[in-house]
Amino acid sequence: MASRETQNRILDAAITLFNKEGTSQVSTNRIAEAAGVSKGNLHYHFRTKQEITFTIWLRIEQEVDSWTGDASHPTVLHMAEMLHRQYSLIWRYRFFYRELTTLLDGDVDLKYRFRRQRIQRMEEIRLFFEALVDSGVATPPATPDTFPNLIRISWMVSDYWLSFISVDSRAIDAESMQEGFQLMLELFDPMLTNQAQAEIRECLRVFTVDVE
Amino acid sequence: MASRETQNRILDAAITLFNKEGTSQVSTNRIAEAAGVSKGNLHYHFRTKQEITFTIWLRIEQEVDSWTGDASHPTVLHMAEMLHRQYSLIWRYRFFYRELTTLLDGDVDLKYRFRRQRIQRMEEIRLFFEALVDSGVATPPATPDTFPNLIRISWMVSDYWLSFISVDSRAIDAESMQEGFQLMLELFDPMLTNQAQAEIRECLRVFTVDVE
Repeated sequence: MASRETQNRILDAAITLFNKEGTSQVSTNRIAEAAGVSKGNLHYHFRTKQEITFTIWLRIEQEVDSWTGDASHPTVLHMAEMLHRQYSLIWRYRFFYRELTTLLDGDVDLKYRFRRQRIQRMEEIRLFFEALVDSGVATPPATPDTFPNLIRISWMVSDYWLSFISVDSRAIDAESMQEGFQLMLELFDPMLTNQAQAEIRECLRVFTVDVE
Repeated sequence: MASRETQNRILDAAITLFNKEGTSQVSTNRIAEAAGVSKGNLHYHFRTKQEITFTIWLRIEQEVDSWTGDASHPTVLHMAEMLHRQYSLIWRYRFFYRELTTLLDGDVDLKYRFRRQRIQRMEEIRLFFEALVDSGVATPPATPDTFPNLIRISWMVSDYWLSFISVDSRAIDAESMQEGFQLMLELFDPMLTNQAQAEIRECLRVFTVDVE
């Protein structure tokens, strides 16, 4: 088995176990077992569990980095697709978002990369919102702070939704993911024109978060 | 020194140290020293650091429980005061909100009480919003889900703002607290009538989060 393939098998097994039980409950030995590789082979690829988590982040990062050119599609449909894409990612890496604060506090390199991408994506979303205004989908912001503020709020709603529902000891499942998704639509509703508001509600009937 | 007084001195010292360095960096011995009590005396009152944190929560809880009757004052000024009150509390117990997810995950009793109060406060805020509509300060919600959704979003913005800024390695200070406060006003702006929007912006010039 090629080195790259082994690494991916280990990461896939780790994601499955972390999502199910949380990072603190899963040892590297169990990950090795689930991936069907020896302990020695796992440690050849990843010295620590933290290295595994960091490399999983690199996967997330790569996927998010591929989300380019949003501002070239300033439509309600694309906006709904962006949200759908975001929540499907959070679902697939739900352990990461569930444990976000702890993971970032425990790894300065991870925090650095997470921050760097957050800054970059926030700027891309701002450009997308401005394009929405130019294309008549969104109404012009009341103040220069309106869009940056709205984007920050949306980041909190998306990154901390799983922390929020964990207080209620609710399961992370299709229903709770869909609820988080709908909060985002509620948040963006006031910036849209009446027609766009109706369109995005229509999208809601079609889009559901992928939780397979 | 009376038992109750000793307990309060220990809690005050713990809050100061926790706010400065985080709970994990502060030992009960250092709390005893800062409070001017013996280690034995501290352990007579609190068996563990977790018990200290839990008792600090009881203080927060008591303060929040005293915020009754909001719905009897459905005005913009009272709304600004509610937000101001909330952010001043978060500032005084900033370690608690900074470490929220970790603290709740580590103590089922704390999580239970936190959840119970959150449910209760959310209902009180919902009644306040409905009173705002009745008094003509807010516009009627688009759907029955609008207010509950808005309240959930506001909870995330308030409870996770300190986690959000920690990603940027930003200090928790007057400036960052004020920014969090303004996000809330941005969030509630769309539900208010035009006149109320102007009034709440006026309030913003007067209110700043108490950070002494």
